[in-house]
Amino acid sequence: MMKPVRIALDAMGGDHGPEVIIPGAARALERRPDIRFTFFGDATVVQPILDSYAQLAKTSSLVHTDVAIRMDDKPSQALRSGRRTSSMWLTIEAVKKSQADVAVSAGNTGALMAMAKTCLHMMPNIDRPAMAAIWPTIKGRTIVLDVGASIGADAQHLVNLAIMGSAMARIVLAVERPHVGLLNIGSEEIKGIEEVKTASRMLRQNAFPNLDYYGFVEGGDIGKGTVDVVVTEGFAGNIALKTAEGTATQIGQWLREALGRDMFSKIGYLFARKAFAELRAKLDPRNVNGGTFLGLDGIVIKSHGSSDAVGTANAIEIAYNMARHDLLSKIRESLALSHAENLSPPKLLAADKS
Amino acid sequence: MMKPVRIALDAMGGDHGPEVIIPGAARALERRPDIRFTFFGDATVVQPILDSYAQLAKTSSLVHTDVAIRMDDKPSQALRSGRRTSSMWLTIEAVKKSQADVAVSAGNTGALMAMAKTCLHMMPNIDRPAMAAIWPTIKGRTIVLDVGASIGADAQHLVNLAIMGSAMARIVLAVERPHVGLLNIGSEEIKGIEEVKTASRMLRQNAFPNLDYYGFVEGGDIGKGTVDVVVTEGFAGNIALKTAEGTATQIGQWLREALGRDMFSKIGYLFARKAFAELRAKLDPRNVNGGTFLGLDGIVIKSHGSSDAVGTANAIEIAYNMARHDLLSKIRESLALSHAENLSPPKLLAADKS
Repeated sequence: MMKPVRIALDAMGGDHGPEVIIPGAARALERRPDIRFTFFGDATVVQPILDSYAQLAKTSSLVHTDVAIRMDDKPSQALRSGRRTSSMWLTIEAVKKSQADVAVSAGNTGALMAMAKTCLHMMPNIDRPAMAAIWPTIKGRTIVLDVGASIGADAQHLVNLAIMGSAMARIVLAVERPHVGLLNIGSEEIKGIEEVKTASRMLRQNAFPNLDYYGFVEGGDIGKGTVDVVVTEGFAGNIALKTAEGTATQIGQWLREALGRDMFSKIGYLFARKAFAELRAKLDPRNVNGGTFLGLDGIVIKSHGSSDAVGTANAIEIAYNMARHDLLSKIRESLALSHAENLSPPKLLAADKS
Repeated sequence: MMKPVRIALDAMGGDHGPEVIIPGAARALERRPDIRFTFFGDATVVQPILDSYAQLAKTSSLVHTDVAIRMDDKPSQALRSGRRTSSMWLTIEAVKKSQADVAVSAGNTGALMAMAKTCLHMMPNIDRPAMAAIWPTIKGRTIVLDVGASIGADAQHLVNLAIMGSAMARIVLAVERPHVGLLNIGSEEIKGIEEVKTASRMLRQNAFPNLDYYGFVEGGDIGKGTVDVVVTEGFAGNIALKTAEGTATQIGQWLREALGRDMFSKIGYLFARKAFAELRAKLDPRNVNGGTFLGLDGIVIKSHGSSDAVGTANAIEIAYNMARHDLLSKIRESLALSHAENLSPPKLLAADKS
């Protein structure tokens, strides 16, 4: 049997806490029996729930703490009140101490990011964290990053995002040299942000071993699956992600309204209900739950605060895969190759039409 | 009868040129008989098409030029080759010379923007143009700007966008004090770009007469119709717009695939075909065709390059409304009120939690 994947899980995170997180873990364990969970949270609440999942209780351990970060705590507040003591901190620290391979929390994003930075530190050559989303497309899936961990990015950071996102895509999409696109707003000369143009030149001129640079992509290319990895800074990336989710919700509501409008439509719905179930599954936000923090010296997965057990299990599945396929080593290897041999700033002076 | 609305139309713009633009104009004229068109383009091509639309031919005029801007001309190229001579330039110049109330072109965005800036100049107190889109939402419609005319924005420009977008919303949505939201990525303290925070304080502290400041909104709020006007800088705004369009296309394709999967689904589709027709109409990109340039001393509407006659007619309908309800005067009035009486920079020093 393979070595188990050890997952540290913040049992108190999210809007619903252990009542959905423990069932979510049980669900994930059914799919991946080689997970060993360590839960962090209030034992008086968590233990009774855990007791009703025999297999999970048998294979996991629970570390008690009665400090929990609230969903509306600001990052600075969370660090003041919960450093070294909260379930969120202890979950991350388990990775730091090599007691776990990956940490998962549905706690608030800002606090989780601040704690992860403080506890784990950044990787060499990376100065700020990123969050990567796995975005469903017509062709399959695309990694999009940064979806909101950091605002703004210079060219070097965008290149680092390309490298880290590609390492993740190698795992998620099982392609050796993922196609990488830089998000931009068209190719007319007055358009395009300076940093994005410079990053494009750097990606084109330097032969990065583990990625294949495609060029600029636009917002509409994400859902088309034009490339395997879409790179952008966190402000635009977060707005793209939230806008796409909002559009999916909006169209879903229009569809429901249209199908409820008269008897024929309702009958049609009944006949085609398998088709609608298939569509609903594709639009289910729980299936894309789980943001991966990148750039930190340890793997942390952010589950959505409003997730139920199904969503939690999906975030755990991402955590499992990132740990099982050793995301960190893949990133370190790619970064080392890129920074040692390939980056050649002098070439940047050359005129390039990319 | 009301004074007619005089529309200057670039007959050579877009991927299909006069073959869709003239029929589009004919369609628009059926709906709005009080339009008087002036077409600019190659008379040898345009006149024969125009001749097959009796009513349109009778009420419009055609100004010949054999210079046309290509869809792939760069802005600088377009200005060099087409200034004072091209159909695009002459269309804009008709507004400048007060021979038309509004200009419409499906020519390339970069060239159109460059020519409009050169020919019309900016309004007082506005230093760069913006493009506003009318975005369909669950509740109705929302004005989103800037969707790609300018990259980056300081706080004052964001405030100007709020004022100009509100003037447009007063016309499109017929509300006296539109609700305005600033696009941001969440309210945690580590998040939010500095310019957006400052603009938020300025909008909150100054009682602008013609708008009601709501606060920050996120990407998902656009489609919900949370506010009447969503303000952001052009890079993020363009990515949001293109991403939403891409998501709609993606879901449309998923729906078609799902409904074609088996006999029951196909039967269901037949029963519910009115419902699907309703949904299809809501998702039809032609219904949202027409970007409004703001900040210029004249109204210019950009029709999508790939538009057919229906899309062209919709862009003309927007042009009609903006001219009929005197968008420029509304913007000038709001800007004057805001800049003369309301903007009070010293207050910006006060701490504000907005």
